[in-house]
Amino acid sequence: MINIALLGAGRIGSIHSANVVKNEHAQLAALYDPLQANADRLAGELRCEQMTPQQIFASDDIHAVLICSPADTHADLIEQAVAAGKHVFCEKPIDLSLQRARQCRQRVSQSNCKIMVAFNRRFDPDFQTLQQRVAAGGVGVVELVSIISKDPVAPPIEYIKVSGGLFRDMTIHDFDMARFLLAEDMVSVSAQASCRVDAAISEAGDVDTAVITMTSASGKLVQISNSRRAGFGYDQRIEVHGSEGMLVAQNINENTVVAYNQSGVSSAKPLPSFLERYEAAYRAELDSFVRCLMGEPITVPGMDDGLQALMLAEAAGLSLQQRRTVNLSELD
Amino acid sequence: MINIALLGAGRIGSIHSANVVKNEHAQLAALYDPLQANADRLAGELRCEQMTPQQIFASDDIHAVLICSPADTHADLIEQAVAAGKHVFCEKPIDLSLQRARQCRQRVSQSNCKIMVAFNRRFDPDFQTLQQRVAAGGVGVVELVSIISKDPVAPPIEYIKVSGGLFRDMTIHDFDMARFLLAEDMVSVSAQASCRVDAAISEAGDVDTAVITMTSASGKLVQISNSRRAGFGYDQRIEVHGSEGMLVAQNINENTVVAYNQSGVSSAKPLPSFLERYEAAYRAELDSFVRCLMGEPITVPGMDDGLQALMLAEAAGLSLQQRRTVNLSELD
Amino acid sequence: MINIALLGAGRIGSIHSANVVKNEHAQLAALYDPLQANADRLAGELRCEQMTPQQIFASDDIHAVLICSPADTHADLIEQAVAAGKHVFCEKPIDLSLQRARQCRQRVSQSNCKIMVAFNRRFDPDFQTLQQRVAAGGVGVVELVSIISKDPVAPPIEYIKVSGGLFRDMTIHDFDMARFLLAEDMVSVSAQASCRVDAAISEAGDVDTAVITMTSASGKLVQISNSRRAGFGYDQRIEVHGSEGMLVAQNINENTVVAYNQSGVSSAKPLPSFLERYEAAYRAELDSFVRCLMGEPITVPGMDDGLQALMLAEAAGLSLQQRRTVNLSELD
Amino acid sequence: MINIALLGAGRIGSIHSANVVKNEHAQLAALYDPLQANADRLAGELRCEQMTPQQIFASDDIHAVLICSPADTHADLIEQAVAAGKHVFCEKPIDLSLQRARQCRQRVSQSNCKIMVAFNRRFDPDFQTLQQRVAAGGVGVVELVSIISKDPVAPPIEYIKVSGGLFRDMTIHDFDMARFLLAEDMVSVSAQASCRVDAAISEAGDVDTAVITMTSASGKLVQISNSRRAGFGYDQRIEVHGSEGMLVAQNINENTVVAYNQSGVSSAKPLPSFLERYEAAYRAELDSFVRCLMGEPITVPGMDDGLQALMLAEAAGLSLQQRRTVNLSELD
Repeated sequence: MINIALLGAGRIGSIHSANVVKNEHAQLAALYDPLQANADRLAGELRCEQMTPQQIFASDDIHAVLICSPADTHADLIEQAVAAGKHVFCEKPIDLSLQRARQCRQRVSQSNCKIMVAFNRRFDPDFQTLQQRVAAGGVGVVELVSIISKDPVAPPIEYIKVSGGLFRDMTIHDFDMARFLLAEDMVSVSAQASCRVDAAISEAGDVDTAVITMTSASGKLVQISNSRRAGFGYDQRIEVHGSEGMLVAQNINENTVVAYNQSGVSSAKPLPSFLERYEAAYRAELDSFVRCLMGEPITVPGMDDGLQALMLAEAAGLSLQQRRTVNLSELD
Repeated sequence: MINIALLGAGRIGSIHSANVVKNEHAQLAALYDPLQANADRLAGELRCEQMTPQQIFASDDIHAVLICSPADTHADLIEQAVAAGKHVFCEKPIDLSLQRARQCRQRVSQSNCKIMVAFNRRFDPDFQTLQQRVAAGGVGVVELVSIISKDPVAPPIEYIKVSGGLFRDMTIHDFDMARFLLAEDMVSVSAQASCRVDAAISEAGDVDTAVITMTSASGKLVQISNSRRAGFGYDQRIEVHGSEGMLVAQNINENTVVAYNQSGVSSAKPLPSFLERYEAAYRAELDSFVRCLMGEPITVPGMDDGLQALMLAEAAGLSLQQRRTVNLSELD
Repeated sequence: MINIALLGAGRIGSIHSANVVKNEHAQLAALYDPLQANADRLAGELRCEQMTPQQIFASDDIHAVLICSPADTHADLIEQAVAAGKHVFCEKPIDLSLQRARQCRQRVSQSNCKIMVAFNRRFDPDFQTLQQRVAAGGVGVVELVSIISKDPVAPPIEYIKVSGGLFRDMTIHDFDMARFLLAEDMVSVSAQASCRVDAAISEAGDVDTAVITMTSASGKLVQISNSRRAGFGYDQRIEVHGSEGMLVAQNINENTVVAYNQSGVSSAKPLPSFLERYEAAYRAELDSFVRCLMGEPITVPGMDDGLQALMLAEAAGLSLQQRRTVNLSELD
Repeated sequence: MINIALLGAGRIGSIHSANVVKNEHAQLAALYDPLQANADRLAGELRCEQMTPQQIFASDDIHAVLICSPADTHADLIEQAVAAGKHVFCEKPIDLSLQRARQCRQRVSQSNCKIMVAFNRRFDPDFQTLQQRVAAGGVGVVELVSIISKDPVAPPIEYIKVSGGLFRDMTIHDFDMARFLLAEDMVSVSAQASCRVDAAISEAGDVDTAVITMTSASGKLVQISNSRRAGFGYDQRIEVHGSEGMLVAQNINENTVVAYNQSGVSSAKPLPSFLERYEAAYRAELDSFVRCLMGEPITVPGMDDGLQALMLAEAAGLSLQQRRTVNLSELD
């Protein structure tokens, strides 16, 4: 049985720790949140002990930590956990600063601890099917990947202000997805964006609607479109075009009921938020982490994947600012 | 905490008891199966005690039983359980014999025990949505219900022989669904059927492909089509036509990935069997039983529903034999 | 160039004669309608001469006639046309009376004239695709055909009264479609029906909602559902189930535009009436008649097909009245 | 009756002139093609006289010309036609050179002749529905338009060499579509592209796969993806995202037949080429030209639309070359 401790009992920490409880090979050994109310609520729900990070890192019984705290604490906690010999499951991003993230990677690079950066969408069953079929030649040679990723509603402006911006906070999933599907790195990024949803986002120095184009090392094109608010719900689709056809992963709808009447034909909306849409992905992600700790030879996204996604976000910001295509090599 | 014991640790018993374990208000107190291997396997998996039916009925700690034994034991076990003051969750049918089922209902009619007959499809989220929207006038006045219900593959001939026949074993779900959606009883049945799938089924005196038409008390038409083997998988769809339109519950597909290539456009098949298709329904069904025992004012299918479905199966058999429309009143 | 004359310049006559004009191998030589306004309007539109039936039959220049007059004149006109050596394209039914239709067939059976009974749906491109793929083994051995055929709105009660009833007027298309898809005759019919749409239809002695089940010579099942008013538009779908799968011809929608918003996902309705839905079928039907006259070895529905469909309508009426399955052989 | 002459009897000239013949208010008065075989074939088919351009321009009986000759003759012919007082229907582009196109516009700007530049996709029924619903506020305030436009197969390399390049030859339709849907001009363009389909295209100095992002005057984003070869057929889709939802125009499929079998669910491909996909659009386009000449107050794309699309193609080329976002104002 693998003992796991949770650092950060907010929304995403609640999801991951509940999946620890459901995993038959792992158990939730302890949790910590500086916000005592959060800690008490989740510890009650999951019948779990509370410990400080120091106690967690010092405990011989704890094998791994889930880092679900604010983004600016991730790098520190990764380093402390690894120093204490704990395996790490860390929410994206490694850090909002590319420099700090690189430093962190450098510092943990000699460790034998396993470090997983939690790009949950890689574990979505439909996207996994897509990736496997693309890898198996399902579209011939890939030429263009199109990723549509739109949130149902913009987060509170307070969140926007500390989020690191659209590219680091939201597009980062799509940057990683492009690398996952193409199994190679990107070499250039061009971003166009504006503020269409809420002027307050613009005042906070961010954008809410964006179109990003990337070129991969082998010359494949990637197209991303993002919005903080889709207008009808949660929009998560991917198209992969290749020399022999196209594979599309569509939205998953709430139900299959279709109504036909005089005003038209109406069906259910896509699942309304990441909670429902990626419920299975979160479950599979945590299970993969546990299987990885148990020694199964599976690949999970790691520090390099976290860094590449962060570099792409950095490059997109630069592209938007300078109105030009940015080469990733400029960030070296 | 509601303590539940399982009688019959076969395939369907395994499903229901696993859902007991997942329910936060119930626990699996004991299980029994005359086939010791079955009992040992499931007791091991769910970490549950084994008891004889006599011990179960005698135990003060056990509040309810799940009857998942062969059909010809259902009526006896219902009566014994009720005599012992236990609530009952019983798999369909009450009995293969209409007369025995009526007797059973009579014998338990004075009890305060709650008895639920497990028509799981009533708890399928899509069919629930359908039922609610029909009840809310979503198609105006209902005129015609069409139920398509086809299994992926015929069961072993040994099962067919003791199943009570297609109408009692398989169509019984559709008979109940018609009553659930229309919220009224049927008054007549006409059945056409033949043996298309496997000649051995015919030799066993049964049919494997059937079309049944029913008229409800208020004159609405119901159309059912059944097959023991759909040829492509599991086919479970319902259409409700009314004065102002149509509502359709479609099959649920394995994933949303669509492939476009020179030979056409291909997408995933419907979920392959009742295990996947009705996983959520089984979970919701057991949860509803527990909520019912906890005193929530919800309606679950009971002895009368079990009897009505059985009467429709009986009438369908008579119609097939005599090649005429049979009135339900003939069975009184 | 094949010269064709039209008898009956109403709605359906207008459709067929316009398709004569569009056919590059045929021309509309003359038309007749006892309602002078009808005749004048269509002759003006299509720049066509007016002649009496006697003149048409007597003319050496006219090779074929389109019989689009009321149903009770069809048999007479077929006989007169054939006696005059004209090829015949006749709207269904041959006659409302099975006996008269049989007599007509008998009287024209020795002729070399080609006689086509206009079951337009056989020429619908989607249904043709369906038929070809079924014939090519696309579902393995066919087991069940399900035909859904619902009109958008009931015709005027005056029409209902002279229509010959739902089975002869509307289901007749579905009877023929079943024979077309299965390439064999039906041997028994069972019909259930009621009056759900309009009480005036009941008072006129007809039904408006019906479910018909048929068995083919080789034991295949056919299921038809009809309504005079679908509540949302025109509903024309077919499913063919077989040993290796299912083929479905769906409704054709008005456009491909889909709207996603907070209240759901909505798309276009099916094409609203037979005029749009079967526009291509009517065109292909007339073209097939012309190709047939030009000596191409193609098969078109003839007198026997018209009679078989009429017999099925007769049997359905008998079944409804006597509440039993009727064998076609009873009508011999 | 409006008399129209055709200049250029190639593939696209054949389409437009056949639609002249089908229009009840117009007739094809004459045609010309320097390739005598082309001219003879089409004149035979449409039973039409042959005249030289000089004869056509000099004829008092001819009201309008269809310019369907090679792109580098368009501007000259527009000027000659207008000088002769003929209305003009001209295939895109006005010229491959922006400067020459501007000169042409300048020279015809004082004329009373009507000049239509043939952006046929504006007349596609589905895209018209899309445009009307967007204009009516169907998605609230538009934020992002995504246009997917991929050909089934790359044209011969000889065509590529004289085509003016992907942006002027193919994307030009999408540039115009963006302006049509948004009802405003674009202010900046960023293009990424590469040669994925055929190395010969690269050797010819062109690209075959492209992603273009544009910003409109009011700040809306437009995303275009193009390929010379979709791998499965013809891919023509549009998505319009706005503050209150999304409208999508999907591909039109060859038929509605769906096959379900053990290997999955398969349906028909999209219509295979522009000939089938835009058949209705070509018809409606020509009809709109005729209605326009008859004085109906309808809007058709004109010289300014032709120039704007050409400027966007020019800007896209510049962007690709210089790897930066190009402002349209740079082209003034």
